[in-house]
Amino acid sequence: MSIKNLLIEMKNMSELMVDLAYSAVLFNSVDAAEEVLTLENRVNAMNYEIKKESLVAARTYEDAERLTALLEIAEAAESMANAAKDLADLVIKGIKPHPVFKIVMEESDKMMVRLGVVEESDLSNKTLGELFLANRTGMRVIAIRRGESWIYGPDKNTMILANDILLLKGTDEGAELLRKLASAACSLEDIPEELEDED
Amino acid sequence: MSIKNLLIEMKNMSELMVDLAYSAVLFNSVDAAEEVLTLENRVNAMNYEIKKESLVAARTYEDAERLTALLEIAEAAESMANAAKDLADLVIKGIKPHPVFKIVMEESDKMMVRLGVVEESDLSNKTLGELFLANRTGMRVIAIRRGESWIYGPDKNTMILANDILLLKGTDEGAELLRKLASAACSLEDIPEELEDED
Repeated sequence: MSIKNLLIEMKNMSELMVDLAYSAVLFNSVDAAEEVLTLENRVNAMNYEIKKESLVAARTYEDAERLTALLEIAEAAESMANAAKDLADLVIKGIKPHPVFKIVMEESDKMMVRLGVVEESDLSNKTLGELFLANRTGMRVIAIRRGESWIYGPDKNTMILANDILLLKGTDEGAELLRKLASAACSLEDIPEELEDED
Repeated sequence: MSIKNLLIEMKNMSELMVDLAYSAVLFNSVDAAEEVLTLENRVNAMNYEIKKESLVAARTYEDAERLTALLEIAEAAESMANAAKDLADLVIKGIKPHPVFKIVMEESDKMMVRLGVVEESDLSNKTLGELFLANRTGMRVIAIRRGESWIYGPDKNTMILANDILLLKGTDEGAELLRKLASAACSLEDIPEELEDED
């Protein structure tokens, strides 16, 4: 992989890890915590690759200086990944979070929810592109837990299936709306004025 | 301030710092970088406060264990703040980023833009609540640079003024739309199907 692709992957992965780690603590989810640890190993390995590639790529002092900035970005991603790992370790160690943590997460700028999709939900068997969730509800799907595996940074072609567990980040009101959608307590038609036709 | 409020503030601030630091590097902005350093001092001071408060609050071993989880969250926020500071230091030191950095930021899951608001723009003299930018464009205002000061984590009551510099995070298409709005190349009426009436 090129330095560019490694860095894109590292940046995305480290941001995802922070979200995943906070949610692991919030929902006391051992499988999310374990996933954070797995990803942390991947980020470490990528950081090592970037260092190697950079050393080989640097020909002049000017190269070296500019590559330094890239290495620093890789380091920043690794620091974030490490912070995420420390959080995930709490869950693995079985340390229950203080009740205040839940309040902190709920009053944070962006709240996080975890929702199971029922069979009859309007979300199931539709792609994120078709659903326009971000536009309709202000909630962004961060990851999908499907059976034993995870789907990260899903894109518009990612299809939501019944029994998926969605991890989303967004606002209070959006969370409430999505909870209803996922549980089939309301349908997509109940959410008017979507951007769907225009996009 | 209570532990709860300190943690909320720390968590929000550390996330903002990461965004601000990436954008400082991306736009080679010394004032954004300096702001990151100022915020880092605040985060450090808050972490110290949280430690003090936690030590005083712990009465039993059970208390102590649960408080440990809170301290770990404060540490995670501080790690993220430190990573942001390291990035900001690059800008302060005058190290120009490698061209690859721009590509990395643009191809990242969430892209970042910085836009000046012109007098005739439909954005000026409206609150974020009135504008519904997130719903209309999928872009979230992270911070506003107004003259010599910054407004962080603006809420729906925050008014956008002419000559504000907005720092936003979101999608490709949203960025394009906002660029037009901010420069008065298009008006709000050109963006149909907004959620405004429903919210």
